[in-house]
Amino acid sequence: MKQFSKNTPLKKKNFPLSEVYRLLEPGPVVLLSTVRAGRPNVMPMSWHLMMEFTPPLVGCVVSNGNYSFASLKKSRECVINIPTVELAKTVVACGNTSGESVDKFKTFGLTAMPAKCVKAPLIAECYASLECKVVDVKLVTKYNFFILEVVQAWIDPTLKKPRTIHHQGEGEFMLPGRTIHLPSPKTSLGRKL
Amino acid sequence: MKQFSKNTPLKKKNFPLSEVYRLLEPGPVVLLSTVRAGRPNVMPMSWHLMMEFTPPLVGCVVSNGNYSFASLKKSRECVINIPTVELAKTVVACGNTSGESVDKFKTFGLTAMPAKCVKAPLIAECYASLECKVVDVKLVTKYNFFILEVVQAWIDPTLKKPRTIHHQGEGEFMLPGRTIHLPSPKTSLGRKL
Repeated sequence: MKQFSKNTPLKKKNFPLSEVYRLLEPGPVVLLSTVRAGRPNVMPMSWHLMMEFTPPLVGCVVSNGNYSFASLKKSRECVINIPTVELAKTVVACGNTSGESVDKFKTFGLTAMPAKCVKAPLIAECYASLECKVVDVKLVTKYNFFILEVVQAWIDPTLKKPRTIHHQGEGEFMLPGRTIHLPSPKTSLGRKL
Repeated sequence: MKQFSKNTPLKKKNFPLSEVYRLLEPGPVVLLSTVRAGRPNVMPMSWHLMMEFTPPLVGCVVSNGNYSFASLKKSRECVINIPTVELAKTVVACGNTSGESVDKFKTFGLTAMPAKCVKAPLIAECYASLECKVVDVKLVTKYNFFILEVVQAWIDPTLKKPRTIHHQGEGEFMLPGRTIHLPSPKTSLGRKL
C-alpha cells in the first residue's frame, strides 16, 4: 500500500465521469471546498447521494447554518474532495470550526490547488476530487438540498484501496474492511435501466 | 459476534428516530420493500442520503425503470431494510430480477413481517428496518428522487457490529473494517446547527 502522511499532496489524474458513482456510492465522508470573496473554505459532509450516472449528478445537504452554504448558493460551484483516514483528524477539525473565523486551509495544513472548470480549489491531500456545478436549487430553501453536476473528476490512480472514512455518529467512523465480489450488472441497484 | 445465516429472522426492537442517521450515513446498500396490489416486492438501493435528523428524512433515487417505482409512487409508503453480508447474494439476486415476474420474497427465502405504520413489510432477515412515508415528490418526475420520512424504526440490538455491504460498482462490495473514534459534535458534518 502506498504510504503517505496527512501532509502529502497526492498526484491526481483525470478520472472518467461515468465511473464517479463508484467513489461516492459506498458513503465516504467528503470535504466540500468552496470560494467566498476570493477565499477558499472547506467543510466535511456525509449527507450526499448519487442521482445519475452520466453526466454524474450528486445531491447533497449543506445546512444553511454552515458558512459554506452561502458560498455554494452564490458561486454555484464547489469541489467534492474525498479524504482517507490519514486526514481523519483534519476532517473532524474542519467540522468543528467555521470558515467565518478560521482559514481552514492554512490552519489545518491543507493545500488548495487550482481546479480546471471551477473557482473552488482541489484539496491536494485528498485522493479524489470532483469539480461540480450547482444545477438545481429547487429544494434548497426547504431542505438545504443542492443538486450538483460533476464536470471534471480527478483521482490518484496509485491508491488501489483508499481507506475512506464513513461517519456513524457520535464521533465514530467506520473504515473499509475487505472487499467481496458478486457479479451484479450496473442496472441492479435500483437505478436507471 | 452473533452468528446467523441468511435465513435467520432477527428479533428487532424499537429504535429511536433521532438515531436513524447513524444507520444510513455510512452508506450501506439497503433493501426497499413496497406493496403493489397486495403483493410485497423488494429491490436493492444504494442511492440514498439523510436529509434531516428529527423527524428523520431520507432522500432516495428509485428509477422509473424499476417495478418498485410505481408501487412507491402510488402507495407513498415503503420500508428501508438494512441487510448484512450474510444476505449479500440475496441482495444481488433481488437486483437482477424484477418483481413484475418474480415473487422475490418466496424465491429468495425472505420473510415479510407486518410493519406498524405502513403496509409494506419489514424483512425479518435484515438487522434494521425503517418504516417510511413519502413526504415530497417534487423531484420525482425529473430525477426519480423521493423524500421519505421515517415514522418507525426497528433494530436487532444484539448485533453490535453489523457487517453492512457498501456498493463500489462492477460487482464489488466493501465490508466494514475497524471503527475509529474521533470526538465530533453532531453538528460537525455539515448539517443543521
